[in-house]
Amino acid sequence: MKVVQQEQIKEILKSIDLIPIIEQAFVTYSQGKIVTASISELIFKNPPGDVHIKSGYVLADDCYVIKIASGFYQNPSLGLPSSNGLMLVFSQRTGVLLAILLDQGYLTDVRTAVAGAIAAKYLAPTQVNKIGIIGCGTQARLQLLYLQSIIPCREVIVWGRSLNKMIDFQREMNEQGFSVQVTQTIAELTAHCQLIVTATNATAPLLWAEQIKPGTHITAIGADSADKQELDEAIFAKADIIAVDSKSQSVERGETHHALKKHKIAPTAIYELGNIIAGISQKRTTDQQITIADLTGLAAQDIAIAKTVLMSSCPPIRLS
Amino acid sequence: MKVVQQEQIKEILKSIDLIPIIEQAFVTYSQGKIVTASISELIFKNPPGDVHIKSGYVLADDCYVIKIASGFYQNPSLGLPSSNGLMLVFSQRTGVLLAILLDQGYLTDVRTAVAGAIAAKYLAPTQVNKIGIIGCGTQARLQLLYLQSIIPCREVIVWGRSLNKMIDFQREMNEQGFSVQVTQTIAELTAHCQLIVTATNATAPLLWAEQIKPGTHITAIGADSADKQELDEAIFAKADIIAVDSKSQSVERGETHHALKKHKIAPTAIYELGNIIAGISQKRTTDQQITIADLTGLAAQDIAIAKTVLMSSCPPIRLS
Repeated sequence: MKVVQQEQIKEILKSIDLIPIIEQAFVTYSQGKIVTASISELIFKNPPGDVHIKSGYVLADDCYVIKIASGFYQNPSLGLPSSNGLMLVFSQRTGVLLAILLDQGYLTDVRTAVAGAIAAKYLAPTQVNKIGIIGCGTQARLQLLYLQSIIPCREVIVWGRSLNKMIDFQREMNEQGFSVQVTQTIAELTAHCQLIVTATNATAPLLWAEQIKPGTHITAIGADSADKQELDEAIFAKADIIAVDSKSQSVERGETHHALKKHKIAPTAIYELGNIIAGISQKRTTDQQITIADLTGLAAQDIAIAKTVLMSSCPPIRLS
Repeated sequence: MKVVQQEQIKEILKSIDLIPIIEQAFVTYSQGKIVTASISELIFKNPPGDVHIKSGYVLADDCYVIKIASGFYQNPSLGLPSSNGLMLVFSQRTGVLLAILLDQGYLTDVRTAVAGAIAAKYLAPTQVNKIGIIGCGTQARLQLLYLQSIIPCREVIVWGRSLNKMIDFQREMNEQGFSVQVTQTIAELTAHCQLIVTATNATAPLLWAEQIKPGTHITAIGADSADKQELDEAIFAKADIIAVDSKSQSVERGETHHALKKHKIAPTAIYELGNIIAGISQKRTTDQQITIADLTGLAAQDIAIAKTVLMSSCPPIRLS
């Protein structure tokens, strides 16, 4: 059994193009080749925190994966990151533990950011003059960084609740080659951006239907549970394409779940990203369409990224 | 973060009396002080296997615990044990991983066996002349070994499907100071034993109502899912006391779940072991009663045994 530390994981991922790997994970998921357990969720009140345990495997594969991801929201006051977690990789043949990836949530952050880039690849307009980022935390940064290989645009408008955090975001992302403008008005962002990524912990809409112009793509990342929400449900009624990572998951959690509950859309109006990637469902066809990708996160992504780390570690970890 | 191997865990537990520790876990659970997530279950078909992920914490405690336990039933043909697993202990304050207990399922085996001993402490008749063990695997052995501190009787009758495995069981347990007789007829066992423990993977009843005499206590260990069953539901209708580790869990899985489904008993006829230990519910009062303890396993037990190992390791692992 091998233990891989976060530092090693970061080093390994530097030289790997994760886009095709996570694309394949979405396709495999939509083909029904992934078996997942129901998600276990532990909630803590004092101090506030939550833990999600996701697990699953690809049929006829070598391994199964359990992913533990936690958020303890007072950690920053202790000088610790809010997010933490690890992934465990076991043999699918014997149940033997093969490896522990002590990623502290990094692999979840990355596979989520890669999913955002994949959504943009199939759904963003061909011409993106400005990227809008709602939120200025770790995931907001990673979304922007992983978009680089897909979208040539480097002009960015960021919105966040804290001016200080926006300025930090601006400085850091400018160092990465972006040109970031901060705004305290979401309407300013929606007026100028063709590609918008929401990556906050909001529990009430931040983006409203009347703000969304034709030719906008929105990737909604923040809402991964039933109580979180970033988009006004009426945006869904305006959308030409609504893509989700998992139809069954999107009925229970995330933005789409709110839109379905309020009868803004029919369940038949939702398409899985895996089917769009595979060419079974339609990607964006004109620059005037409004498109949404609502991503709540799949065990399929966790399995794919965990396997990639193991097979790329030195020496590679044998999975069979 | 500390990794504790199975060998160290076995060494640590040698000098610890787990009975009061697991009793306290049952009491704490029945007091409603344990928060647990829903159990995640992964099922494998080829080769056949299953994985259960249980997690939880005691309110206002230091840590939370995730327990992974797997069974891969063709492992013995590869020279590996069927059971495997590990426990993860995290800070309840920050979510930081404190320790990994690579117990390979040993802690689950032990906490299950200790629960059997506790059930016998409160429910077995004062006079036990013979102990009956149904099943001759690892858990059957551990049940008998952990009964030693509670029940003075050393006369045992064992029943199993395989004569060879029964003979192995007999030899090993005789070396531990028992006097074991094997039988291929369960009726012979029920006729002579006042304390019966069932520890098989059966999916259909092995013990029938007409076989159970007054003055018998049965601890049912094997059935931990909805499809497993060792006891004829009609035994429940004959029982004076029906104890379970968790009322809510026993509605969904285990023996009691079958008896409730077939309307052999009312939900009000079931008592939690934690309340019996605390003196809130009645333990056995006469040697003529028929009593059942149906144990499906609690995260509370996992938390208690994991903490015990950590606090008893050298140097002790700090949990706060």
